[in-house]
Order: sequence, then C-alpha cells, then structure tokens
Amino acid sequence: MMRLNEEAKGVYVIALTPFTETGDLDLDSTDRMVDFYLERGATGLTVLGMMGEAQKLTIEESQTYVRRILRRVDGRVPVVAGVSAAGFAQMQALTSMVMDDGAAGVMSAPPSSLRNDQQIVTYYKQAAEFIGDTPFVLQDFPLVTSVTIPVSVIQTIIDQIPTCVCLKHEDWPGLSKITALRTASETTGKRRISILCGNGGVFLPEEMARGADGAMTGFAYPEMMRDVVHYSEQGNPERAQDIFDAYLPLARYEQQPGLGLSIRKYIMAKRGAIATPALRKPGGALSSADISEIERLIARQDRRLKELG
Amino acid sequence: MMRLNEEAKGVYVIALTPFTETGDLDLDSTDRMVDFYLERGATGLTVLGMMGEAQKLTIEESQTYVRRILRRVDGRVPVVAGVSAAGFAQMQALTSMVMDDGAAGVMSAPPSSLRNDQQIVTYYKQAAEFIGDTPFVLQDFPLVTSVTIPVSVIQTIIDQIPTCVCLKHEDWPGLSKITALRTASETTGKRRISILCGNGGVFLPEEMARGADGAMTGFAYPEMMRDVVHYSEQGNPERAQDIFDAYLPLARYEQQPGLGLSIRKYIMAKRGAIATPALRKPGGALSSADISEIERLIARQDRRLKELG
Amino acid sequence: MMRLNEEAKGVYVIALTPFTETGDLDLDSTDRMVDFYLERGATGLTVLGMMGEAQKLTIEESQTYVRRILRRVDGRVPVVAGVSAAGFAQMQALTSMVMDDGAAGVMSAPPSSLRNDQQIVTYYKQAAEFIGDTPFVLQDFPLVTSVTIPVSVIQTIIDQIPTCVCLKHEDWPGLSKITALRTASETTGKRRISILCGNGGVFLPEEMARGADGAMTGFAYPEMMRDVVHYSEQGNPERAQDIFDAYLPLARYEQQPGLGLSIRKYIMAKRGAIATPALRKPGGALSSADISEIERLIARQDRRLKELG
Amino acid sequence: MMRLNEEAKGVYVIALTPFTETGDLDLDSTDRMVDFYLERGATGLTVLGMMGEAQKLTIEESQTYVRRILRRVDGRVPVVAGVSAAGFAQMQALTSMVMDDGAAGVMSAPPSSLRNDQQIVTYYKQAAEFIGDTPFVLQDFPLVTSVTIPVSVIQTIIDQIPTCVCLKHEDWPGLSKITALRTASETTGKRRISILCGNGGVFLPEEMARGADGAMTGFAYPEMMRDVVHYSEQGNPERAQDIFDAYLPLARYEQQPGLGLSIRKYIMAKRGAIATPALRKPGGALSSADISEIERLIARQDRRLKELG
Repeated sequence: MMRLNEEAKGVYVIALTPFTETGDLDLDSTDRMVDFYLERGATGLTVLGMMGEAQKLTIEESQTYVRRILRRVDGRVPVVAGVSAAGFAQMQALTSMVMDDGAAGVMSAPPSSLRNDQQIVTYYKQAAEFIGDTPFVLQDFPLVTSVTIPVSVIQTIIDQIPTCVCLKHEDWPGLSKITALRTASETTGKRRISILCGNGGVFLPEEMARGADGAMTGFAYPEMMRDVVHYSEQGNPERAQDIFDAYLPLARYEQQPGLGLSIRKYIMAKRGAIATPALRKPGGALSSADISEIERLIARQDRRLKELG
Repeated sequence: MMRLNEEAKGVYVIALTPFTETGDLDLDSTDRMVDFYLERGATGLTVLGMMGEAQKLTIEESQTYVRRILRRVDGRVPVVAGVSAAGFAQMQALTSMVMDDGAAGVMSAPPSSLRNDQQIVTYYKQAAEFIGDTPFVLQDFPLVTSVTIPVSVIQTIIDQIPTCVCLKHEDWPGLSKITALRTASETTGKRRISILCGNGGVFLPEEMARGADGAMTGFAYPEMMRDVVHYSEQGNPERAQDIFDAYLPLARYEQQPGLGLSIRKYIMAKRGAIATPALRKPGGALSSADISEIERLIARQDRRLKELG
Repeated sequence: MMRLNEEAKGVYVIALTPFTETGDLDLDSTDRMVDFYLERGATGLTVLGMMGEAQKLTIEESQTYVRRILRRVDGRVPVVAGVSAAGFAQMQALTSMVMDDGAAGVMSAPPSSLRNDQQIVTYYKQAAEFIGDTPFVLQDFPLVTSVTIPVSVIQTIIDQIPTCVCLKHEDWPGLSKITALRTASETTGKRRISILCGNGGVFLPEEMARGADGAMTGFAYPEMMRDVVHYSEQGNPERAQDIFDAYLPLARYEQQPGLGLSIRKYIMAKRGAIATPALRKPGGALSSADISEIERLIARQDRRLKELG
Repeated sequence: MMRLNEEAKGVYVIALTPFTETGDLDLDSTDRMVDFYLERGATGLTVLGMMGEAQKLTIEESQTYVRRILRRVDGRVPVVAGVSAAGFAQMQALTSMVMDDGAAGVMSAPPSSLRNDQQIVTYYKQAAEFIGDTPFVLQDFPLVTSVTIPVSVIQTIIDQIPTCVCLKHEDWPGLSKITALRTASETTGKRRISILCGNGGVFLPEEMARGADGAMTGFAYPEMMRDVVHYSEQGNPERAQDIFDAYLPLARYEQQPGLGLSIRKYIMAKRGAIATPALRKPGGALSSADISEIERLIARQDRRLKELG
C-alpha cells in the first residue's frame, strides 16, 4: 500500500467535494472529478481539506466520499485526507477510518487557539501520539488558522516527530521559510521533508525556485501547476513563468477568500469535471457580475495560452 | 417526553464528562455524578458543553455518554446537549442522535468566524433549518467564541426563530443584556425566553435581580446556585447574597480560564461525585501549590457556611 | 483651498515615507518622490497611511513630513492624510494639524476592537464629531484591521455622516460591495461617494468595471493604475486589462503582507524615486533571493510592456 | 531621583485620569486623587495605563497630566508611566518626556500583532534600544493584548534585557507563572525582578503567597491591596484573606471588562477622590440598575468590614 513520505512531489490536487443541487454528495461527479485531476497531471490527491468543505460533512459522508475517491483512484496516486478536528479522539477516529480504507496519509492544521511556540510543538506531539505511525502533512496556513508557525517550530517538529513527512506551505509571505528549511537540511543535515505549496498556486514559480517539491492546491486548472512544476524541474523557469503568467489573472481571481470556492466550482462545472457548481450550505453564490468576470478571464486566458503555444 | 421550552428555570448544571486515569469514559462515575447533581438541586442537566470536554469525544463516545446520562436521569429532569460543530450536517447528525435518545433540547454557540450582525442571524437561521423543530439554547459566550452578539441580534433571533427558547447568558459584562431583553418582553410584548446564566455563577445574584430564570453552569457546588436562585425568587436577596459571598472566593478561583476544569474536577472527585479528577488529553494538571490553595479555600468556605447557618 | 469630496477620482497614490539609512526622515527624497508620483499620473496623494510607516513617526515628524509633501505638491493635487489613532483626541489633534497645514482631507480605519454593526457606526459618528467638518475617507481593510464592515453599515455611515466622502475599498473579496453601493445610489437615490481601491491594485480592472472611481494604493508603478483607470474610463477594458496583466506578476509579489513595503521601497529606490530603500525599525529586510526574484520580475515586465506597445 | 528597580513592592496604584463633565482634564481632582491614593497606602503610582484612558489623551495632555501628578507626589513615591504606543519613535518620545519630567520608569504592553516567541523577544529588545537605560515594567495582560507570553519568554527578557525590572502580572490564570519565575531565581540564580499583580486584585492573596511583591492595579479601595499585601508579608495570610473576602464581591463587580472603569470612577467620585465620574468619550455610562448594585455592594462591604474589625 502507498504511504506518503518525504519524497512526495508534483501536484497533489486539493480535491473538491461535489454536491448535487439539493446538497447531497454527488458521487458520480466524484468519479469524473478524479479522472479530470489525474488526466491533468495530478500526482496525488488531497481530500477533506478546507476547500473540500470537509467541515460540512458528517462522519458517514466523509467515509462514503473518501471510499469513492479511493475506489476510483485505485492505487494510481496516493490520497491524503484532512483530519483536522476539534479534538484528538475525533482526529484519531478519522485517521483510522481513512487509513483503513486505503489513504496514504493525513493532513492537520493547527487549531486557532494555539498562541506560542511550545503550544504548537506540544499540539503536534500529542496529535502524533494519537495517530500513531500514520504519516502526516503539517498545514501552515496562518491566513485561515491565525496561527503563525516560525521556521524554528517547523524545524523542531521535523526533528522530533518522524511521522511529519510533508509541509503544506501556505504562509503568506512564506518564501523565506522554504529557503530556511532547505538550507537547514543541506547545511546541517536535518531531515529533508517534502514541501508542497498552496495558496491557489499564485507563488508557485518562486516556491519551486526556492526548493519546493510541488503544489498542493486546487486551482481549477491543475495543468498550470503541472506545467510550472515540470518546467521548473527541467531547468526552464522562463517557460514555467510564461505559463504561470497566462493563468495568473484567473488564479488571482479564484484566490479570493470565501468566494474562491464558488469560483472554483463554477469553473470545474464549466469544464465538465463536476455536474453542478453547488456548494453545501452555508456557501456563497456567484452574482451575474462575478460570472461575467470569470468568463472574460477564461476567454483571455485561452487566447494567451494559444499565443504561448 | 420532556422538551425544553421558554419556562426553563432553576439550575441546569453543566455536567462534567468523567474519565478514568487512562482516558476512557468513566460510566460508573457518570451515574454517581448525575445523582450528585440531582441531590443538590439540579432542575436540568446540560451535557457535552465546553466544560464537558465535548470536543475530545468521538461521536460514538458522545452517544454512549449521553445515553448513560439519560438512563440515569430517567426523566426526572430535562437534559440539554451541546451540539456546536464545525458544520451544519454534523450539528444535525448530533442533534438527531441526542434527541432520538431522549434529550430535551440542544445548545449551540456561534463559530468564531462570525463577524457582523447579519452573519450571526443567518447562522442561526440556517442552523435552525438543519435541526428542524428541536428547541435550542443560544450560548452567548464572547470570552471563548470571540463573537459579540448585540442585544438587537439576540432579539432578532428570538423574533424570527421560534425554536430558540433559552439564552445561556455568559457575556461579561452582560447584566445590561438581561435588563434589555426583559424590558423588551415586558414593554413591547416580545416573546419572553428563558435566561440561564453561566460564567461559573460569579454574577448570579445580580443576574437573578435583573430577571434571569436561573443558572446554567458547572461550579462544583451546585447548592450555591440552588440557594441563590431559591432565595432570589423568595424575595430574600440578602440571604441569597450571603450564601453567594461565602462561595465566591472558591467560585472565583474555579473560574480561571483553562485551569478551571482541572479545579472543578478536583473538587468533584474530592466530594465523591466522580472517581478521579482526570481530564482527557490535552488537559492541564494541578500543581501542589494549586491544590493547597483549593484546600485552603474549601476549608475557609466550610467555616463561613457554618457561621451563616 | 482644495477639499476632498465625493468627486475624487483617478489615482491617489499611497505615498511612502522615505528614511535615510540611519532612520531619519529623508526630506530630499520626499520631494523627489512627490515629483515621481505626479509625473506618473497621480491625481492625489495619501500620506501617513499604513504603508507610509505612519505609526513609526512621532507627531513632530509627521508634521514635518506632511508639510514637506504639501510644499512640494504646492496645490497641484489634493493630499489626504491618515489620522487613525488610538483615541479621538489624538485623531482630532492630528486632523487639525494636517488640515491647518493644507491637507484636503483625512483617512481613518476602524480600530480592531470593533465587533458589531452598531459599534462601527457609533465609532464613526464619534470620530466625525471630533474632526468636525473635515472630509474623510473610510478605510475598509479587514485583512489588517480584522473589522468586517457590511455594506449596510457603510451605507448607514454614508447616510448619516455627510463628511464621509470616500471609501478606500480594500476588503478582499469586495467586488460585490462596490456593486451594492453603486446600485444603492443609482436605484434609491442614495448619496454617491467616491470609491478608490487599494490592495496594491491587484483587482483594479474589475473594480473599475464595478463602478469604482480609481485607485488609492501604492504599487511602485503608479503608471499601471493610471493606465488601467484611463482605459477603463475610455471604454477600453481590454487594453486596460492587457496593461494590468503585464504588471500583475510583480504587483502580486509586492502585495505580500509584511514584506511588501520592503519590496516597494526597493523598487522605488531602484527607479530613483527615493535615495535608499531603508525602512525605519521595526522593518523587514530583503534577502538576496528576494532581490533576484524582484529583478527577474521587473525584467520580464519590461519585456512584456515593450511587446504591448 | 527615584528610579524604578527590582525592589519595587507594595501597592502601585493604577491611577485614574480625572475629567470634567465636558471632557477636559480635571487637574484639581488629579491632586485630590494623588492624596487619596497615598493616604491609603500607595507605595507607587502608575499613570497613563489602560485604565487611565491614556489612549484618549493628546501628547500635550499626557504631559500636562503627568507633570501635575509628579508635582503633587513631590518625590514621596515613584511614578511609573505607561508608554505603549503604535511605534517605537512615539514610545521613545513619550519616555523621554515623562522621564525628563521626573518619572521613575515606564510600562509597556506588547502590541497585539505579536504572534510567536521570537517576535515578542525581538519587540522588547528593540523597545529597550529605543528607550535606552530607562527601567521598564513588562505588562503581561493577554485578555486585552491577545498576546500570550510563555514563562520561557519572560525569562529570556529578564536574562537579556537588564532594564526590565518589573513584571505587571495579569495573565489569567497566571499563578503558575509567578511560581516558575520565583523558582528560576531561587534555584538557578536568575535575576529576581519585581512582580506586581493586576486584574483588579482579585487574585492578590494567592499571588502574594506565590511570591509576588505587591499589587499594581486600580481597585477603588486601595486599602484592600495595602492590607492584603501587609498581612501577607507579616505571615498572617488568614487575616489577609479575611479582608480580601470582604472586598471581593465589589472587586469582582468592578472587574467587568469595559464597564469596569465607569464603576471605578463612580466609586472614586463617591469617595471624594475625584469630582465627577466622567469618562472621556468613548466611554460607557452606568445605568440606574448598575448604580443600585454598586451601592448595595458597598453597603454590604461596609458592614462586613465592621464585623471584621
């Protein structure tokens, strides 16, 4: 069985959770979405993340959804599941559930109550005790969690918790964190973990140049992340950036907090990856002005990509 | 079957969740604790609250625990269950579970992401849609939730959501809120809901004088709340306050954020209500200095109560 | 004398405060910077804003700096001064000082302690009492202030406080706010105030299309804002967007919270607008990796602009 | 000239700033208030604190007020001035101003933007650079600042910044911090600084027993703090606690966030220490219900104190 480890790279797409118009899980769309992601270069999937509306699902629904994902993926790429929960017992139960069903690892963001270095380290040590030998991704996303994790604390977690194998990097700004962690492993022999970057990919060229291993984000055009990662690794950063620049106006638009998920689902539905753009309640809806802006940006993006060749 | 309604009064004790030293649910202690509360004047119980370590339980444990509570209570008093959850589907699932098992109503605190009046009203309207005709307690506890709910918003919720039957009042300061809500129902004919007060009871005499119907809190001496409510209702506020004053030094000490639950469990174990003071992880532990202080305050409290007669 | 009013439009550049390497005010650079902004299309200047390091200045320094700005501007464009302060008396003193010296108006962001609709309205009413008939800009910037101002509250302020003549719009996402405010003035006859947009200009094409009157932000290439505003008003949104897209990779990079000011000052120094990129303490410093990234983005931007013609 | 140092002890009263009904500084009341405090056992005064409405004063008013305080005190006790400011230059200017006028030291709370250990240490190092050899009090008040300072960070500040001579201790709960700091100085020879306790004095008996040197708070009955400190030091903690208990119902009432200052000023005016209870805007006003409660608590307190003898 696949297990997430420090070698994770490429594009771990943050998967949507498709719903029907009436708010039920849309499992047929789930299959189609998996295919969509894999056809566009996903080297992994991350489910039940913040942009996966995980907190709106019951436990049973979470399991149904994850099982459907795993069945469709069928071992082609590793699947990571978000298990951030109000308490460790729930995190443990969720972890057991998804790992028993075949997930490769889990992801955990710090609760917003953590307020200093020691509290953060202690939290992850206790979490690691609860989830045993399950490999996990540390999600560093201060904009949403309000927890600022200094590099020294990330390094302590890497040093003391061997099951922390990957950093989902979405501090903003956070480029210097990548540099500091890579320098630490190169110059002092610290364990090198995987760094996969979030934030809708809007800093991906710089992140790759700083030493990231890829992306873990859900921009509705996974081919952008695939290409930027590919050309960065091929030593062709200008080509990577040309492609990135073509997608940036839309990526920026999709990156609006709160509204972003509606935008992403709209595009994914338009692209045929899911049947409808419905969010489960509570969820924003797009206005006709929003939709016009999206359509215009897509049209411009298509032209620009065609020019690029 | 008992259903919570606007007439709720007296002392709804915020029940502990007893654990064994190894962190398992302690169901024998649960029985003993129920008896302890009822013998000391509880007119209701509120389980799975913040001080009930609800967030540390799995769904299955929550059900096991609530069922044990309900079996032991056996219809003698209504039982309210906290159902604050990350999303509405989970809240709905929890609500169905506890109501099917015989709870009288549920309690819900606002998520800390709510940032203005309309968001709060919308949140409770959506919550009410999800939990159907289940009566609910609105928990107003800004110190923990960071959500400040103005009186006008509480009044809008009362006006527009008939299943909101009770306010767990623990804004601090919040005395003027009680006055404003009572004035609104007396002078403009607004629906009068139950107001039960939290914060460890440290403002209970004033809250009763302002028009509250009782307490919903978990101070380890429920007889304090029982007596203050009783003498307040009997028109004997001086006697109510004499008793209150005798307990205040310890109530103040127990009210320390974070540490308070350890103190409460220590006293409850000392009083024989539960077998051990163990908190489930993550949970603070008392130092020997803490314990000396508690013992000293209890000894002084005992003397003072004896003097009072 | 010029006074800010509801007709404000174009590009109100958020001005830097130039310092010498030793942390003193650099008044010669201040002159040069004013010229730089005006030559690149500024129709107004906003000084002592968050990105102007206002909070690092003493009152005396603020006055010295504002006077220097005003002398150099010499009535060519209106100058707005930030007066956000810990209390109303300080705000009043600052306002008197800058208005006496010739400013056209002031700008005020809500203190982060405000937590509901009524508190926000009350705050601005009290502020308006203190600053008298001075026209002011309401700065709506939740990412920094943590105060979320609903459209209804902005509309109440517009309705009840005639000296509120401009909204510095930098909610994120906030496009729907512009639409709502413009609809209110068009369909219900509400007073139409100026809306100038912030956030480094990264949503400027959409904001103009929604009804904004221009930009109030400090991206180191004011010509971007000038051109986007110009072509938007000329009915040529595609040309506006082409130019915007060329600047977007760098605008995005400059928009990093915290680090952004160092980036902006670096570019402004490179462009000759100020003598050195020094921030007053406490202030971040750019690493060599940061600088390489900036230089690369500038080079790419230059090529792209040349292609555009 | 008196300078604050590690030996500070007793009762440093957090002084009010008296205003007239029209919102001007009331300097005559300032004199009377100084006498009131000193007659009731103040061993120091702390001015321009949060409860001194410091943020509502202009710089000129701050100076006028501090000078008046210093003239009336006339060297009898040391005077500490709060200098928390938006930036270091302002903090430096305020510090120079009050120290030149004869203050004994300054006090500084961390800005709420600080989010991890290193940021806090760096902040105080930079602050110390700006204020030079001025001795300062570190105010640890997370309820208001939202900055949680771990013991290890306080100890680092003590170790690395010799001008930090006193901790204003008002973490809640914070008793273990006192124990930890005292243990560090006793067992490992760390520098022992003064610890003076805030929070309206509602934990003063326990704080003294843990090793605090006194109080730095503004409860309207300074004689409570004087007596609790005195009897604690005399080895008579039961007498200290008897007196404390008599004041606790009112101290608890005065400790309500936001409303507390209005309560304190009401009592101080009633006691003749200041002419009127007016707060400068924005400031809460007491309702008639509030006033009745206060009067009732004072009457009960008087009876209880008489019984105590």
